[in-house]
Amino acid sequence: FKSKLPITAVSIFSQMSALAEKHQALNLSQGFPNYPASAELIALVDKYMRKGYNQYAPMAGMLALREQIAKKVAKLYDVSIHPETEITITAGGTQALFTTIATLIRPGDEVIVFEPAYDAYRPSVEVFGGNVVPIQLTAPTFAINWDDVRAALTPRTKLLILNNPNNPSAKALSVQDMEALQSILAESNAFVLSDEVYEHLVFDGLAHQSALAYPLLKSRSFVVASFGKLLHTTGWKMGYVIAPAELMKEFQKVHQFNVFSVNTPIQLAIADYLKNEEHYLYLPQFFQEKRDYLLDGLRGSRLQTLTSEGTYFLLVDYSRISDLNELAFAEQLTRENKLASIPVSAFYSKPVEQQLLRLCFAKDQDTLSRAIDLLHTL
Amino acid sequence: FKSKLPITAVSIFSQMSALAEKHQALNLSQGFPNYPASAELIALVDKYMRKGYNQYAPMAGMLALREQIAKKVAKLYDVSIHPETEITITAGGTQALFTTIATLIRPGDEVIVFEPAYDAYRPSVEVFGGNVVPIQLTAPTFAINWDDVRAALTPRTKLLILNNPNNPSAKALSVQDMEALQSILAESNAFVLSDEVYEHLVFDGLAHQSALAYPLLKSRSFVVASFGKLLHTTGWKMGYVIAPAELMKEFQKVHQFNVFSVNTPIQLAIADYLKNEEHYLYLPQFFQEKRDYLLDGLRGSRLQTLTSEGTYFLLVDYSRISDLNELAFAEQLTRENKLASIPVSAFYSKPVEQQLLRLCFAKDQDTLSRAIDLLHTL
Ligand SMILES: CSCCC(=O)C(=O)O
Ligand SMILES: CSCCC(=O)C(=O)O
Repeated sequence: FKSKLPITAVSIFSQMSALAEKHQALNLSQGFPNYPASAELIALVDKYMRKGYNQYAPMAGMLALREQIAKKVAKLYDVSIHPETEITITAGGTQALFTTIATLIRPGDEVIVFEPAYDAYRPSVEVFGGNVVPIQLTAPTFAINWDDVRAALTPRTKLLILNNPNNPSAKALSVQDMEALQSILAESNAFVLSDEVYEHLVFDGLAHQSALAYPLLKSRSFVVASFGKLLHTTGWKMGYVIAPAELMKEFQKVHQFNVFSVNTPIQLAIADYLKNEEHYLYLPQFFQEKRDYLLDGLRGSRLQTLTSEGTYFLLVDYSRISDLNELAFAEQLTRENKLASIPVSAFYSKPVEQQLLRLCFAKDQDTLSRAIDLLHTL
Repeated sequence: FKSKLPITAVSIFSQMSALAEKHQALNLSQGFPNYPASAELIALVDKYMRKGYNQYAPMAGMLALREQIAKKVAKLYDVSIHPETEITITAGGTQALFTTIATLIRPGDEVIVFEPAYDAYRPSVEVFGGNVVPIQLTAPTFAINWDDVRAALTPRTKLLILNNPNNPSAKALSVQDMEALQSILAESNAFVLSDEVYEHLVFDGLAHQSALAYPLLKSRSFVVASFGKLLHTTGWKMGYVIAPAELMKEFQKVHQFNVFSVNTPIQLAIADYLKNEEHYLYLPQFFQEKRDYLLDGLRGSRLQTLTSEGTYFLLVDYSRISDLNELAFAEQLTRENKLASIPVSAFYSKPVEQQLLRLCFAKDQDTLSRAIDLLHTL
């Protein structure tokens, strides 16, 4: 058997969550909330199951849910999306990413990826014979030099993958970034995969710069979103993708043979739940408070905190504490200090001179408070 | 944009279900039950949601569920499967099929497919640049001539896709078929994708011949199963795949980047529910009664029924009624007689001289009774 992917089957998230369990460590590694989802939302899922909505949804998803998504997009970005032709509900953000890549990438195609990058991008591109062209961004600012991006474009560039706000750097793109990207796209035929699963988690009054809000970008983009992140239910595995009708048609050709459709009663429940826009408008404040709690708590510790503009994550620099590399230090911290994190090196294809760990603050106050105490002992 | 797949984004199942809705026709087209799922099972899903099991499952699936699957396989086929290394839970049977093909198929690889074939196989192979080598089987017996299969093998044959019992022919493979297949595999390096989503729906005391029960086959097979078919919940989109540990490792490399994991509370609920083996042992009898009800009901009509050894489906020959081709007749029947079915031509890549429709009998008695009345008017 000739393996298609020169990787192990165990992602850094699975690895660190398993290590956390083994050492009974506090788990700030894999990005998921540890507090309850809405009881009202759960009751809605139960209601639709009991009412008998347990058979195949339409391939593109329940129309009621697609309509609510269009309403949310209009509210947030003042953009009109057609629910019948421009939205598909997916089995989580990951499946939306993979199916977009499946739709676009042929052997030899080049895909520009900004590192640090979510670990799914590279192998997904490689399964389809594409080549990743990484652009390395580094701490503390993780700023993009758009001239480097222009220089990386070739006639084979098929796709550019953005993740905004970025996991793990916690950096949000600015209006200037978006405009620079648009001017680059005007010179190329490349498509954009805009991974916006943390769109609702942008802090300090910053506005999330969705690809949907920039006309040229929108016309070339597959925008990926996640109900897991929106509703604190990462284990329900629901997300969606937005793209112009012509591109969406191509996406659906693959989607219908990858998963065909996704969970019916959960789709109906979310459609009802989103009718109340308070159910998502509170999110930036909710997560900003968690970020601030962790940030403030780490004052006076030997860790240096970096800026977190968005996402579930805060990066910390441990160079005053240890010379170990990031993986070794993260493992030691789990084993000896009972706190699991993610080494940022896992998001780079080539080593970078940094000593950073990623901490997930999508946790209840008790967990964050105990994490702070542990980190002060370093 | 250069489309990867020369198809429309609307499968025959979506098409006919939409047409059924438009004409308010009885829907015996797309394969899904129209009676309630178990209230006990639904209550278990609700319980696990309320208990807070709403975050990522492990990538391979909840171990409790994999253990119940291993127990079921031991019970049904007297074969031992290792729950930790040989099972992955998937977002439905379709995603298991697609990910298996993603794991194996490179550009230029050949894949032997028996037609009539489920519509997902060909495009899934083609997305990865593989070439389908169809072997046409025809009514009334749909028998496989294994010499034809041997003749179709080339050094490029990477995979052979079986669907047993077969959708739409409703034919179950015999011990002789399985032994012939094993002897062919002994001469080749091909893998097998054994789509057994209807494994529990085999009638008249026939024993389902799982690839798992044949040692050489088992060592080369990815066996795909469906909880939707097992639990009358096609809209929950849960299934699984069984393969030898070395092959499963490769499957999981792709799986973790395609969907990462699947719905957590539903996995836990199914694990509990399957502890009672009565919850699946009743299925052959349950569906056989539905088949017999439809079969008996059609006696004296102008339709000729074919043998249904398994699956949700019964094929009927309408050549005494109309000269129309299958698609045209199925559309006319939906429009004028208010009964939706599936034209069997949708499962062939080249036209066959047959006049067959596929009827789904996974319906409540009232629906079947009204369908019988409608079909007697033809
Ligand atoms: C799909 S597991 C990873 C979850 C996540 O988004 C992260 O931890 O970065
Ligand atoms: C995934 S929609 C098709 C359902 C089905 O298995 C069929 O009707 O053949």
